[in-house]
Amino acid sequence: MAEVKNKKVILKDYVNGFPKESDMLLDASSTISLSLPEGSNGILVKNLYLSCDPYMRGRMSKSQGSYVDSFTPGSPIVGYGVAKVVDSGHSDFKKGDLVWGFTGWEEYSIIPAPETLFKIQHTDVPLSYYTGLLGMPGMTAYAGFYEITSPKKGEYVYVSAASGAVGQLVGQFAKLSGCYVVGSAGTKEKVELLKNKFGFDDAFNYKEEQDLNAALKRYFPNGIDIYFENVGGKMLEAVLLNMRLRGRIAVCGMISQYNLEEGEGIRNLSSVIGKRVRMEGFIASDHYHLYPKYLEMVIPLIKQGKICYIEDVAEGLESAPAALVGIFSGRNVGKQVVVVARE
Amino acid sequence: MAEVKNKKVILKDYVNGFPKESDMLLDASSTISLSLPEGSNGILVKNLYLSCDPYMRGRMSKSQGSYVDSFTPGSPIVGYGVAKVVDSGHSDFKKGDLVWGFTGWEEYSIIPAPETLFKIQHTDVPLSYYTGLLGMPGMTAYAGFYEITSPKKGEYVYVSAASGAVGQLVGQFAKLSGCYVVGSAGTKEKVELLKNKFGFDDAFNYKEEQDLNAALKRYFPNGIDIYFENVGGKMLEAVLLNMRLRGRIAVCGMISQYNLEEGEGIRNLSSVIGKRVRMEGFIASDHYHLYPKYLEMVIPLIKQGKICYIEDVAEGLESAPAALVGIFSGRNVGKQVVVVARE
Repeated sequence: MAEVKNKKVILKDYVNGFPKESDMLLDASSTISLSLPEGSNGILVKNLYLSCDPYMRGRMSKSQGSYVDSFTPGSPIVGYGVAKVVDSGHSDFKKGDLVWGFTGWEEYSIIPAPETLFKIQHTDVPLSYYTGLLGMPGMTAYAGFYEITSPKKGEYVYVSAASGAVGQLVGQFAKLSGCYVVGSAGTKEKVELLKNKFGFDDAFNYKEEQDLNAALKRYFPNGIDIYFENVGGKMLEAVLLNMRLRGRIAVCGMISQYNLEEGEGIRNLSSVIGKRVRMEGFIASDHYHLYPKYLEMVIPLIKQGKICYIEDVAEGLESAPAALVGIFSGRNVGKQVVVVARE
Repeated sequence: MAEVKNKKVILKDYVNGFPKESDMLLDASSTISLSLPEGSNGILVKNLYLSCDPYMRGRMSKSQGSYVDSFTPGSPIVGYGVAKVVDSGHSDFKKGDLVWGFTGWEEYSIIPAPETLFKIQHTDVPLSYYTGLLGMPGMTAYAGFYEITSPKKGEYVYVSAASGAVGQLVGQFAKLSGCYVVGSAGTKEKVELLKNKFGFDDAFNYKEEQDLNAALKRYFPNGIDIYFENVGGKMLEAVLLNMRLRGRIAVCGMISQYNLEEGEGIRNLSSVIGKRVRMEGFIASDHYHLYPKYLEMVIPLIKQGKICYIEDVAEGLESAPAALVGIFSGRNVGKQVVVVARE
């Protein structure tokens, strides 16, 4: 039975405030057998691509009734990834199958209950897309935009964190739906991407705006029908000042709040009354039954060049801690992926 | 042409902070002709009952893009009321008709565009009910509870400001829908009413609770499915900590915030993501097309004694300023009405 090295990224302890690379360590000493133990119903996978996602910040803290469990200090980080089946004790999977879903931040993982994994059918697109465009972030954009906000042609759509894994897709879906869409991001380079690559009607660098309310009034003189909320805090307050009657806010994430001891207070929530605004939190996995429908829509769009996707690819498991930490300061440009192995 | 005295309650100037009786004055010097001018398409009404409602606070301030216009300083307060037609230049109304809708805080009003008024058909119930149970507050409770929160049997419902014009009805509708309902109010007397008169399953005095989160955990050990939001601020923060998965918050009002220079910040809004909470602001008048359906439901319930309604009745136009000011400190017990005349 072949034993091989199995490098891992371990969470040292629960994290307070902004996560640092030093909150994780690289364990280069572990090994793993490339055959499952006799009688296992799980699968053994080789991890190819790992996904760095904002929601993971919550799992680095001691659980306070969040919707996802905390990571286990001393164990590898867990997250979405793309992997190849090396050995299978489960009748639905065989050696060589490609899957995406939850896996460990390590070279090889044993997945005891692989039923929640998605088998990858379309391999004529970049496999890394299954951590983004064709994975959880893609389903987040799809379900959040189409199911939660019910967009209508001609509506005004605003996306914050717009060049990120989810935002870049929401903007493109909004354009495909005939909406007017403006995005914000934190660098000049990202703003250029929004306008020139993803086809947003307009975009701005929120870090250069002294007054977010004034900025939104400039970009949305008629107000905002749909806000795809990725950041929270002061941006949400400014958006509430600019919502139109019967506007919808899909609350996808509030990344500006995740590293604060106490959230910034939203002081103008009562404006939802007069404006009849609906705010709704959602989680992509509630909508995974729509995944086949999503693929049916999006795979042709990818092949026709009507949807594009920007990834920020970090090479090697060693680079994973920095890549994960980087998304909380906006260091990444586009979806942050870590390549563990390409096949 | 008979000229009669027409007492009025005038808003002196825009209000900052808590409104005071002295923000209004009683004008006893005006007179009015009891016949409409030749060619008028409006109606002349004798005001019977006037309604004191929390949303009126917004109209006392200089408009900042609120959903209702400001009152005009120097002119009478405007609000919902019940009135009797004295003279009509409009083909839909005739002398003696009873109506409810927007009128002035005065003995007689000319209503130039009476199309928005509702003609009162059922007069075998107290006429004052058309300022409450059978008027805007009734439609607020009905639309907010049934249309916005889509209640299901067995769900856990929490109502703040629960003995008020709207809250007492939401609690009773919730019981009729087979929900478990707890209300909060600000005095022992009101809490007793909630439990003994309106049939809430339980109730508490929020002013006696040091820790609202702990109080809600005590009354809702399984969490809250539906929150009917009347108060905002710290209560909303505590509720967000206790919402169940896929909970709904109908945002009817945030009375705790109306007299503050700047709203209290809601610091834990991001919890709507993991809990998939939907928050929706609404206005009764958007749902007035449902009024006939509402009457069809509620009139029999009133006659069968299955719905009750508590009013706090102030006698005479002179008492109107104190009555209006009182609702912002919770002085009223039940719906605050002012009787101008009984017929």
